Parts: sequence; structure tokens; C-alpha cells
Amino acid sequence: MSARTLVAVDWGTSSLRGALIAPDGEVLEERASARGILSVAVGEFPAVFESSYGDWMRPGTLCLISGMAGSRQGWREAPYCACPAGFGDIAAHLEWVEPGRTAIVPGLSMEQDGVPDVMRGEETQVFGALQVLGLNHARLVLPGTHSKWVTVTNHRITDFSTWMTGELYALLRQHSILARTLPPADSADHNDAAFEQGVAYSLRGGGLLHTAFSARTLSLFKRIATDALPSYLSGLVIGEELKCQRLESGDSVVVVGAEALAKKYAQALRQLGVSTQCVDNQATWHGLRAIADTLNTA
Amino acid sequence: MSARTLVAVDWGTSSLRGALIAPDGEVLEERASARGILSVAVGEFPAVFESSYGDWMRPGTLCLISGMAGSRQGWREAPYCACPAGFGDIAAHLEWVEPGRTAIVPGLSMEQDGVPDVMRGEETQVFGALQVLGLNHARLVLPGTHSKWVTVTNHRITDFSTWMTGELYALLRQHSILARTLPPADSADHNDAAFEQGVAYSLRGGGLLHTAFSARTLSLFKRIATDALPSYLSGLVIGEELKCQRLESGDSVVVVGAEALAKKYAQALRQLGVSTQCVDNQATWHGLRAIADTLNTA
Repeated sequence: MSARTLVAVDWGTSSLRGALIAPDGEVLEERASARGILSVAVGEFPAVFESSYGDWMRPGTLCLISGMAGSRQGWREAPYCACPAGFGDIAAHLEWVEPGRTAIVPGLSMEQDGVPDVMRGEETQVFGALQVLGLNHARLVLPGTHSKWVTVTNHRITDFSTWMTGELYALLRQHSILARTLPPADSADHNDAAFEQGVAYSLRGGGLLHTAFSARTLSLFKRIATDALPSYLSGLVIGEELKCQRLESGDSVVVVGAEALAKKYAQALRQLGVSTQCVDNQATWHGLRAIADTLNTA
Repeated sequence: MSARTLVAVDWGTSSLRGALIAPDGEVLEERASARGILSVAVGEFPAVFESSYGDWMRPGTLCLISGMAGSRQGWREAPYCACPAGFGDIAAHLEWVEPGRTAIVPGLSMEQDGVPDVMRGEETQVFGALQVLGLNHARLVLPGTHSKWVTVTNHRITDFSTWMTGELYALLRQHSILARTLPPADSADHNDAAFEQGVAYSLRGGGLLHTAFSARTLSLFKRIATDALPSYLSGLVIGEELKCQRLESGDSVVVVGAEALAKKYAQALRQLGVSTQCVDNQATWHGLRAIADTLNTA
């Protein structure tokens, strides 16, 4: 069976991204919107999909969707694959919305110390990034509202964990006592030195419940410029996330995600003596294409 | 000079508490309101004080005020005393609003790793609690929106630090993704077992950015009852605070504060094998009375 045109979709909590990919792998067009699953009412998923990507769906076109669209609050629940899980496991457990034509990629679950953890969408990015880099073993981070740290051994995800770093930053930035001290959102440019100072202070190990208060006192004592506070706070929360990963100087980490955030993580990881390789969000398209290839050759 | 009647006031960020104390130390009356300094406009402090406690201020009455009323956003700024600081230091640096009659107690500042920390009001509670318990050396915690951990050596505060535990709990409870899973505020009773489970999970050391997510996944996998989630989350954040204190089994900690929260801290500390002595918010009145005594005998 020859390769088919692929509509690759990453349907997340707050955003919807899609790519039209030619049989030879060329990305012909991309479209993104704010129609994440939280903005879509039960029963409206087919209509939102149709209005977003319907014109891409010609006869013979395949559509693969990763992300929260496969959650209980999404289009159709795709049960989690339990870790350790390889690329073949997710490719073999697609949830077909329209058989042979449109499928949702399952997420992964795992359990540690009696506590479950889950991901949806990141598994596709991970396998896409491994393919781009030609790796079978890797430690990866996918920064975001809920960052994921992933360990891959022999091309299988053996371990992962979720970190509420981006969300905590937003909470502290917008709703905490620090919000009174910090400048309005997005009014301040990224300040490298302040970010680094925040990372360094977190790495010392005080714990975020304590270190976060330093954004207030440093400002109160005029030791840091107000404009630099958002970068400092960002450094504090990212530094806290890194501190907990027990990384060692000389380790290598793959950072998967949008450029601005990936650069921050790479900067912070450098402070730990950890080297990085970065893969942007195109990793999703690579992952979905790889799944499509398994179907085409089946 | 004989002892005077004392109007003791704890004027915090979000609340105002006062006590009328007879020369023999008997608390004759207490009044509390929500007129914390955030609710009082610049210039309105005298009027709010007058309407709250004016009828207590007879000729010869002394009034001592601790807390955020002495901050830059308060009634009158009372410059911080630098640590190490003893009871005599704060008693000697009162900021008189009306000389000989009404004074604000200064807070304390200290510096560690180049980062300042501050307290206002807790210093008075600490010295009051030490007096109640007859201690010259102690490790104390004053739980709250911003918890304080305080080390007292030879009746001097040598070290303290601020922990945004109560605030983080409220942020996660009200504004995070967990808010969607948790029952409405105050609809759930304290659940001892769930609280203990949260404390234990945090003490294992994953880090709050990660452990907080467990409130979501345990609920998603129906491993914990929705009604128990607030207590579990409370255990997570308090457990994280305790984990960072490097306490050892056999240590002793003085818990100063309102009964409900003090009981939670005592319960969590027991899980670490740490013994506790609890002193309620009357510690403030004891501390202010002790300052008044130094003036009466001066």
C-alpha cells in the first residue's frame, strides 16, 4: 500500500494545531487555533474538526490525532497504554473515530509509589523527536503548563513524570501576592541575568514554597528591578523543576517544544552542566507520520 | 511606675484583632474584624483604629500594635530590626504614633545567601510563646498564608524563613487545574487519613511541582474520594514545607497559631517523629504585654 496524504492533528487542552502532510513527508500547510478541548462542548468535536480541517480530508486521506482529544473530556476516549511502552504499542492501539480514516492516538500511563501519572500527546512528540535525532535512549523534557520528564530505553518509554511548572508560574504571576509586585503580564522582556539568578537560587535547594518569597523581598529591598522580576520568577520555578531531576554535570537532555520555552530550559540546564539537543513542535508531525507509516505498511 | 491597662492589637494584612488587657494581665475583652491593612486606605488608619478600639483608650491606657500596620503600606512604617534580635531589641525600637500612648512594634529582617527575609507580627508571637512555655531556646513554626520557621537561641531570634504554604494551597485549590476536580471550598470536612497520605507522599521527596499533580491523577483513577482531596492537597503542601526543614526524629517544635491549623501541623510533625508544643494566638497578647512591662519598669 502506498503512502497516503496525512492530516496530522495535535488537539490539546487549550489549543488545536494541524498539519497537512504530503505522502513524501512535506508539510504543505499548518493551521492552529484556540479550539482546545476545553472550548469544545460534548458532541461538537466532529463539527469543530470539519470546520478546521474538513477541506484537507480528500478521499484516501488519513487523519491521526494526538493529545487531549483522546481524554474522557475529549472527542473519544482512547484508553492509556501502560508503561513501559514503545512506539509499536501506541501505533497498535489507535482509537478509530472513522475506521481506516480518522484515529486518535492513545496516551500513556504509569505508576510510581502507588501514584498514577499520565500523558496525552507528549508520547507522540517523544517518538517523533527520537526519530529526528536518531536516538534509541534518551532523557527528554517537554516543557509547558505541565512539563513532562521522560526516560527512553531501547526505544521504549520506561519512566515519565509530570511537573506543574508552567501552571505554578502562572498562578504565582497572576494570583499570588507577587502579582502586586510584578509588572503587568508580557510588559517585560526576558532578562537572561535575572532568569539565571532565579535558577541558581532554586538549585541551592531551599524549596519553592520558600524561594518564591524571595521575588517579594528582593523587590521590597530594591535588590532587583521590577522589570526583571518575571524572568527571575520563571528561573525560580524552572530551577526547582530541574533540581528535582537529580541531573549530573555531563548528562544530556533532549528538550522538545516551542523555541522560546525550550531556550529557557536549555539555558537553565547549561547552569547544571547538562548538554541539550532541542527539537521543536514539528516533533508531533514526525511522530504522527511514523504511526501513519506503520499503517501504510501493515 | 505601676502597670497600665493595655490595648493589644495585632493588625495584619487581612485581619485586625485587639484585646483589652487589665493591669493584672486579665484579658477583659477581644474584638476582631476583617479590617486588615489591605482594606484600609492611606490616611484612614487613625479613623479605623478609633472606631475599632477608641472606647478602650481611657486616660493612662497604653496601646501596642504589632503586625503589618508597621509596614510601608500600613499606618506608620516601623523599620525592621536586623537578626539576630532579642526581645529587648524590638521593645527598644517601638515606633510611637502618639508618644507614650500608642506605638507600633517593629518587625524583623534577616539575610541568607544574599536574599532578605522579613516578618511583622510573628516576632511578638514568638516572644509571647517563649514566655508562656518558659523557653530560651526553641525551633518554632507559625503556620499561615506565609508560614514562618524561627530559631531562637538564648532568647534571641537567630534565624527565620518564610514559606508561602497557605497561599500555595489556596492558589492550587481555587485557581489551578485541581480546582476543577476538588469539591467547592469548605464543603469537605478535614479527613485525617487523606491528610496523612498527602504528608507522607510529599515527605518521600518528589517535589511539590510533581506531587501536586497526584491530586489530579489519584482522582482521575478513582483512588481517592473527591471529598478527601482538599485534605490530601493540604497534606501535600504542609508535608513539602516540613520536608524542607531538615527535621529529625526526636526533634521538638513549638507550633504557634490558631487551633485548627496548629493541629494539622502537629499531626504532620508527628509523622516525622517530631514532638510539638502548641501555643494559640494568645501568644500575641503575652508578647505585647511583655513589651508593655518593659515600658512600665523603664
